[in-house]
Amino acid sequence: MALKTRFTEAFGLDHPVALAPMAGAAGGALAAAVTQAGGLGLLGGGYGDADWTFGEWDRAGNAAIGVGFITWRLTPQVLEVALARRPRAVMLSFGDPAPFAGMVHAAGVPLICQCQTLDHARAALEAGARVVVAQGGEAGGHGDTRGTMTLVPETADLLAARSPDTLLLAAGGIADGRGLAAALMLGADGALVGTRFWAAAEALVPAGFHAAAVVAGGDATRRGRAPDAARLLDWPAPFTIRTLRSAFTERWAADPEALRSDATARDTWAQAQARGDAAEGSPVAGEAVGLIRDIAPAAEILARISAEAERRLSL
Amino acid sequence: MALKTRFTEAFGLDHPVALAPMAGAAGGALAAAVTQAGGLGLLGGGYGDADWTFGEWDRAGNAAIGVGFITWRLTPQVLEVALARRPRAVMLSFGDPAPFAGMVHAAGVPLICQCQTLDHARAALEAGARVVVAQGGEAGGHGDTRGTMTLVPETADLLAARSPDTLLLAAGGIADGRGLAAALMLGADGALVGTRFWAAAEALVPAGFHAAAVVAGGDATRRGRAPDAARLLDWPAPFTIRTLRSAFTERWAADPEALRSDATARDTWAQAQARGDAAEGSPVAGEAVGLIRDIAPAAEILARISAEAERRLSL
Repeated sequence: MALKTRFTEAFGLDHPVALAPMAGAAGGALAAAVTQAGGLGLLGGGYGDADWTFGEWDRAGNAAIGVGFITWRLTPQVLEVALARRPRAVMLSFGDPAPFAGMVHAAGVPLICQCQTLDHARAALEAGARVVVAQGGEAGGHGDTRGTMTLVPETADLLAARSPDTLLLAAGGIADGRGLAAALMLGADGALVGTRFWAAAEALVPAGFHAAAVVAGGDATRRGRAPDAARLLDWPAPFTIRTLRSAFTERWAADPEALRSDATARDTWAQAQARGDAAEGSPVAGEAVGLIRDIAPAAEILARISAEAERRLSL
Repeated sequence: MALKTRFTEAFGLDHPVALAPMAGAAGGALAAAVTQAGGLGLLGGGYGDADWTFGEWDRAGNAAIGVGFITWRLTPQVLEVALARRPRAVMLSFGDPAPFAGMVHAAGVPLICQCQTLDHARAALEAGARVVVAQGGEAGGHGDTRGTMTLVPETADLLAARSPDTLLLAAGGIADGRGLAAALMLGADGALVGTRFWAAAEALVPAGFHAAAVVAGGDATRRGRAPDAARLLDWPAPFTIRTLRSAFTERWAADPEALRSDATARDTWAQAQARGDAAEGSPVAGEAVGLIRDIAPAAEILARISAEAERRLSL
């Protein structure tokens, strides 16, 4: 028997879990695997690179997946092509969703907005979000500093007062059934899971990064700007990126912007990323990495999370 | 019917909730109120000011309370006087518990150690802690940056592997029954609650600070060093203090150490703290302030938290 919530009912899911659309890591195979296992698979549309995104979308075959974009990098052109593929949902993160919400609504596709503050959640409601994701700073990848433990119930109170039919997912630090059960207790209708699926066999992650994650504890991550400076990405405030700590992140933590004028260091980082060198690169992972002890197929991860949450909730 | 956990059974409580021993705010009246209402009241021994601590202890009357100290400020002399009063527990936070653990054990008093990282938790086990408190960065007052959502289950795994009889409390961001229920799902035996009790009628908090907290959202806090610099306190790394944002905290955020050489600014801050001026002072509160909408007696707060958690868990 699976967990039923408003989220599973609205999207026809077996488990109240969505895949975080992690740029680069959540490709077509992973999104399809999560969908086929009864979760909501979201392709990582990331930085709006159309060739990558639609190539990976093709790899998902006929699995009913959604797609997530980094809002400040999205263009109407890419969104239009995405909507023509009739995604199960479009998720927008990091930036004002208003300029794109009309297109998503016109296509009849559910809009998911990821939020790091209450102001973001208010903007999501104004944009007509079907689902609000309250993302705590524990999360891997980009985010801000509010903790999941407080952001989720405070957002739940906002939705209850202003838009009770809007669904709420918790994100940030959820990697097992304990986290999913906690998310439901905090008032969420489900969870958006990143790092645990980043450590799935289907994720587009180098083997060296996976090996580093399996042995890392949750204290071994940090939020910073060096990985973005190394790619010359101009991420807007207040967002930073959480990765495993490494020789690279510690070397540049004090003055990450200096990387922008050091082409040799940037190239060294890019090569380390490509070959999966966790010391000279910066594997993207959240604090939940301390709860991960193996690399497993996404379907098995999802089944474990759901079964453990059910067991906890029925005690 | 109340929630039963290993924590309620070990300490003979009606509710799996302890009062955070908040320096200055958790005086004898508040500690006694929490104990009398069926929680574990812990007096805020704070900076080891014996006159204040034992004066407040007297105000608790014959309520069976415990006491908490800031470890790096504690002296054997103060601890000896405290132990002679037969506290229900001694809690040590922020520093190595090893130098004091022997005295606590010799007195037959349960030792509670508050931890912000897995290394702290390992040190707590080595010191023979009866209870480990895993405190996430959402918390008000001093702390570090790990989130409650991940620190609690990772610490639970550590205890399960190394010391399964040691109890675990979750702290940081827990202000209502949703948070308590989530803490139990994450693997804790109960919760240590600070900010919600800081907003109790019995707390030693100026009315102006209480008024500011009731209207503040959870995004209105920050971790920083200015309030410590303003008191010339040399808090060791990595600890910072979370307070409401104010004109004071924003003015000094970039260079808090400059306060140490500005006696006029320090005096202005001290006067604002004394009169409860939330703009020129820095009320100590965590992100959970966004979940607080009234000032109420501690017994009522505790009853609400416990009843809401039970209701959530029985759905």
